[in-house]
Amino acid sequence: MEQGTNKNAIILLSGGLDSATCVAEAQAVGFNVHALSFRYGQRHSIELDAAVRVADHFGITNHRIIDIDLRQFGGSALTADIDVPKAHDVDNLAEGIPITYVPARNTIFLSYALAWGEVLPATDFFIGVNALDYSGYPDCRPAFIEAFEAMANLGTQAGVEGDGCIKIHTPLANMTKAQIITRGEALGVNYGLTISCYDPDNTGAACGSCDSCLLRKKGFAEAGVVDPTLYIDIS
Amino acid sequence: MEQGTNKNAIILLSGGLDSATCVAEAQAVGFNVHALSFRYGQRHSIELDAAVRVADHFGITNHRIIDIDLRQFGGSALTADIDVPKAHDVDNLAEGIPITYVPARNTIFLSYALAWGEVLPATDFFIGVNALDYSGYPDCRPAFIEAFEAMANLGTQAGVEGDGCIKIHTPLANMTKAQIITRGEALGVNYGLTISCYDPDNTGAACGSCDSCLLRKKGFAEAGVVDPTLYIDIS
Repeated sequence: MEQGTNKNAIILLSGGLDSATCVAEAQAVGFNVHALSFRYGQRHSIELDAAVRVADHFGITNHRIIDIDLRQFGGSALTADIDVPKAHDVDNLAEGIPITYVPARNTIFLSYALAWGEVLPATDFFIGVNALDYSGYPDCRPAFIEAFEAMANLGTQAGVEGDGCIKIHTPLANMTKAQIITRGEALGVNYGLTISCYDPDNTGAACGSCDSCLLRKKGFAEAGVVDPTLYIDIS
Repeated sequence: MEQGTNKNAIILLSGGLDSATCVAEAQAVGFNVHALSFRYGQRHSIELDAAVRVADHFGITNHRIIDIDLRQFGGSALTADIDVPKAHDVDNLAEGIPITYVPARNTIFLSYALAWGEVLPATDFFIGVNALDYSGYPDCRPAFIEAFEAMANLGTQAGVEGDGCIKIHTPLANMTKAQIITRGEALGVNYGLTISCYDPDNTGAACGSCDSCLLRKKGFAEAGVVDPTLYIDIS
């Protein structure tokens, strides 16, 4: 990976496992990491507590949490009164685009990151999309990220004056959840600080049976790492 | 232009001359127009009064005004305590990217439009960028719009499942301000409802000497149309 040599980078920090690992990856190659999180009307807004913990853990002093209202559009189990699907077989998750897809969410998040980058300044952006996530979400696929980067280089002052210098980094893109965890452990990530669940209780305990919990559980199992998650699942 | 045949379209409606003309163009080809405006911390937020008037004028019943805070990033004369440049020679406007460029603004606006489009649903979007505006703003250039459209088709459910059906329409892209005004007059646009000024007073009267006012004045003069704008300029 390209070395950051103390260049600024903005990372989209959800408070989940992937974005926490992404911070570690960005710091490992020398970037000066700034974190951006969103209170967007997500049902699992307690993940922002995790984002604050993760930012603190990594010594990130510049962490912005932006309020935007994606609940006004709805259209997702995460931002509307639609139940989060629960399952118990991680190898048989529903096909197609999940109902937990939030309309244009990553496009909006990355657009805000671009705006911040223009003034920070930063032309390097990290997002923790990975091989498992992008199986269903259109805005987690490499083709989308590449297209966003191309657009960003045409639509911003930094991109135009810097001759296409904007880079969207996706260090986890080709990793399984187990590989991400193994990598994160080596980099000193404390996954006990993170929350992946789409439907946690108000203490942040995980449901254990949403897609995100199932993938997380499987990842820890396959990585041979003790899962530090507190689950409320009683099944 | 492709006929809309009563398909939904979302138009970015600022309340200015261009977006008002864009509504007329969209309706002229048969689109069922929904309007999206933003209270983004712009110094000329009175333009939103014009947006409401324009929406009403065109019988748009679905007009959303979204609150987002781009003042938290600043970096522009429109969203920070930076003076709006004033000039008196429209043929000698400053070169390069103007200080009135708002970081990643059109990217953010179009991203919200995509989110709304996912649930409305709408896959047609209109933005009133034009030949004069994009001379300086990176996010008004055709290359940016094309790249945004490509990105949108990869990053949204509608784009993926609809096999690249998302279209960003820019009917004014190749028109001068005078041509836009001539076209709008023919389509029945009441430009007296619109506000283009970057630095109006609190009644909506235009300063008469910002770049936007100068281009607007020149457009009316070249089109041979009486300029209905109320200017506060006393020079």
